[in-house]
Amino acid sequence: MTGAEIQYDAEGGLHHFLTIEGLSRETLLQILDVAETFIDVGHREIKKVPLLRGKTVVNLFFEASTRTRTTFEIAAKRLSADVINLNPLRLSTSKGETVLDTVNNLEAMHTDLFVVRDSYSGAAYLVAQHVPPHVSIINAGDGRHEHPTQAMLDVFTIRQHRPDFDNLKVAIVGDILHSRVARSQIHALKILGAEEIRLIAPKTLLPTEVERLGVTVFNDMKSGLRDVDVVIMLRLQLERMQGSLIASEQEYFNLYGLTQEKLAQARPDVLVMHPGPINRGLEIASEVADGPNSLILSQVTNGIAVRMSVMALLLGGQSMRKEH
Amino acid sequence: MTGAEIQYDAEGGLHHFLTIEGLSRETLLQILDVAETFIDVGHREIKKVPLLRGKTVVNLFFEASTRTRTTFEIAAKRLSADVINLNPLRLSTSKGETVLDTVNNLEAMHTDLFVVRDSYSGAAYLVAQHVPPHVSIINAGDGRHEHPTQAMLDVFTIRQHRPDFDNLKVAIVGDILHSRVARSQIHALKILGAEEIRLIAPKTLLPTEVERLGVTVFNDMKSGLRDVDVVIMLRLQLERMQGSLIASEQEYFNLYGLTQEKLAQARPDVLVMHPGPINRGLEIASEVADGPNSLILSQVTNGIAVRMSVMALLLGGQSMRKEH
Amino acid sequence: MTGAEIQYDAEGGLHHFLTIEGLSRETLLQILDVAETFIDVGHREIKKVPLLRGKTVVNLFFEASTRTRTTFEIAAKRLSADVINLNPLRLSTSKGETVLDTVNNLEAMHTDLFVVRDSYSGAAYLVAQHVPPHVSIINAGDGRHEHPTQAMLDVFTIRQHRPDFDNLKVAIVGDILHSRVARSQIHALKILGAEEIRLIAPKTLLPTEVERLGVTVFNDMKSGLRDVDVVIMLRLQLERMQGSLIASEQEYFNLYGLTQEKLAQARPDVLVMHPGPINRGLEIASEVADGPNSLILSQVTNGIAVRMSVMALLLGGQSMRKEH
Repeated sequence: MTGAEIQYDAEGGLHHFLTIEGLSRETLLQILDVAETFIDVGHREIKKVPLLRGKTVVNLFFEASTRTRTTFEIAAKRLSADVINLNPLRLSTSKGETVLDTVNNLEAMHTDLFVVRDSYSGAAYLVAQHVPPHVSIINAGDGRHEHPTQAMLDVFTIRQHRPDFDNLKVAIVGDILHSRVARSQIHALKILGAEEIRLIAPKTLLPTEVERLGVTVFNDMKSGLRDVDVVIMLRLQLERMQGSLIASEQEYFNLYGLTQEKLAQARPDVLVMHPGPINRGLEIASEVADGPNSLILSQVTNGIAVRMSVMALLLGGQSMRKEH
Repeated sequence: MTGAEIQYDAEGGLHHFLTIEGLSRETLLQILDVAETFIDVGHREIKKVPLLRGKTVVNLFFEASTRTRTTFEIAAKRLSADVINLNPLRLSTSKGETVLDTVNNLEAMHTDLFVVRDSYSGAAYLVAQHVPPHVSIINAGDGRHEHPTQAMLDVFTIRQHRPDFDNLKVAIVGDILHSRVARSQIHALKILGAEEIRLIAPKTLLPTEVERLGVTVFNDMKSGLRDVDVVIMLRLQLERMQGSLIASEQEYFNLYGLTQEKLAQARPDVLVMHPGPINRGLEIASEVADGPNSLILSQVTNGIAVRMSVMALLLGGQSMRKEH
Repeated sequence: MTGAEIQYDAEGGLHHFLTIEGLSRETLLQILDVAETFIDVGHREIKKVPLLRGKTVVNLFFEASTRTRTTFEIAAKRLSADVINLNPLRLSTSKGETVLDTVNNLEAMHTDLFVVRDSYSGAAYLVAQHVPPHVSIINAGDGRHEHPTQAMLDVFTIRQHRPDFDNLKVAIVGDILHSRVARSQIHALKILGAEEIRLIAPKTLLPTEVERLGVTVFNDMKSGLRDVDVVIMLRLQLERMQGSLIASEQEYFNLYGLTQEKLAQARPDVLVMHPGPINRGLEIASEVADGPNSLILSQVTNGIAVRMSVMALLLGGQSMRKEH
């Protein structure tokens, strides 16, 4: 299951945004280019464009995430859409309705876009298969599968500083095994032509046969970070870990936590990124998170523009697509 | 207590919407006619009309219902109103304020419309008695009493397919005893002149002396469904049942669950309806719920238009009422 | 720590609204004057002005308060701002992010105004110290420190009936010890030049050396209320009391509850106020709360206008400040 085949409509326009895997380089560049036009909106006196006026966006978060939900809510409101926030766990649990009945009902209310987050890999794809043609779906994270808007804001942030992906060496560090973010990042970087993608993690936090994705695997930071242009730290998903995948938090930080000392292996102008929320002193030292190479807050800013871009491309109609 | 007398203002316009009982046929037709003008809004590129711009609608749900609350929220936003969602249970419990103090406070903020849901029969009426003349109340379900917007969307859906109520045979099936929906439906169908209203339920799920409402009572589906034009299934309110009113879920489904086989007793073009959320395999088989006679999702769609209609008539002022 | 010094920007305009202490008489009068222009908005057919269109206001309530949050939400929406409601306790607890990281992230989304409420005295000041120049903070209550918008709506309400503060005698009654409201009221009344501020409370509910604030202290209602123009009852913060600060609720009401009988000591046209929510029969008798001298609901109405005023002055730009 990749979902790629149902992401495009008959005219080749983006209709759902479920996975990075299977999307064309052209589509990714289009999302980035449109996002750039929205960066400006965030700096205006009136941070609003009328593009999605009269559209209804439903945040359907089966897995709670105030932070990600807020970015989609702000993005939709800056496009002038109406936003409905639902935590359908409560609805379905207390009244026994199935998820697809919930979706069918919401769609019968002529809503236009569902932003779906779920702990089940494939949830957004499942919903996308069942909605009628006028409804679009954005995957806001599904289990260990993908988190495509996060990956797009990451490559957007990289491109602001390194416009050319061709000679780019990127290291992704940490809990690859549980990370839908890493999976989406790897696909995005491959499609955009990054020279080398390195994964740095203890063996217990790497999927089996991960090399198949076309990445180089390192088990230590010293060699893994050497001469990289970008280092992306992953959040240690303590809440998703079963069993003792790491020996102790202190040992993890000693081996894989990003410190100024370890960072010295990378290029001097290395870009430091993290999808947030950060665990200070666990996967990243505060001196690095708040240091001159850190783009962590730029990622948050760019996340609004990138989510506006995806929403606009899905719902903005032919005019939006023609323009770009 | 019916509440009918305070639903009209001095000019005979609808001021509160608390019960179907006591409303005139003319009022019901007006709500349906205005709703028809809003059906179109749901299909537009920009699903919004400026009718209630600058009005504040408060969803005051003392009894939780994400689903119903969402329909009112979407309806209000499509009319361009500002919406405040409150779950005042928390407010009143944690700080000891009475419900009427809560209402007085909200009304002092110059809010215009309260959508009230409560497990207490008569709650919306109680609130309506205490608000000043510029505030309107919609009953979104009060205990076992009424749920008038649900009944209006049901008769709206029927009218889309059977414009003439005169020769209409309607069966309402299931837990009549606990159903505010059934009570409102019976009143609406009587006022609109339906030929025959049948209630089909086990004796334990029927109110005493229910025949007084002018209905025919059946205890079995076979005879009850014979030649009906419309069958309305009620939700089995398992959460409201005290004691063993039904023998078992399986036996209930065998006797009163709507299957394709039982439905064969009705007219071939019978309309199948359900207020939702449905309990699949308990009061209705999936083959019927998702089958060609089912209007369950049309009801949801129409629910937005009907709620917009009621809100517009209550708040839209003289112009709204004159027009129709 | 007063916070006063960071409340003004380089041009002397109000930039944050954290404390009444340290503000100039001119600033307080400006807030009241601008609020008066917004009183009218609440009576219009379309209760909305476009002043903050395209601005994003974040309600950041670390301490739950549906009531206060609702007033800020309504005020912001009437100014046409977009509003995001967050209960960041959940966010920070479940994912381990610090409060300042939460704030940094929200601010990276180009939000414009944070309304902060916290049980920690100084929380809003702490946040204000860390946000960049384009972000403003309103203190919606911080521990036992201040609740400045509440005090402003109180003096606004007084001024509607007693335009001249010079000869004003005001009694503040009840739990002074735990009351951030009282602290803000005392500062506001002093700055506006009230003739006499009396505090009436049992010794256990008074801070030590409270006379330093320039108030007169009374331990009984009879002498304390004599000839006052205004009596402000405080809410008995039962949930914040540790140990047995009051003997019993009944005894407290006998000694300090405001009854019609005790009120007879005051001027016949005395104004009775309470920040709400009221504990009927504990700090105030219903006959007084609902009586002819009570301005409790006017305070709620004025709260919207005063909060609109503060938001407009913080975000409305030079034009807003010049005008007034």
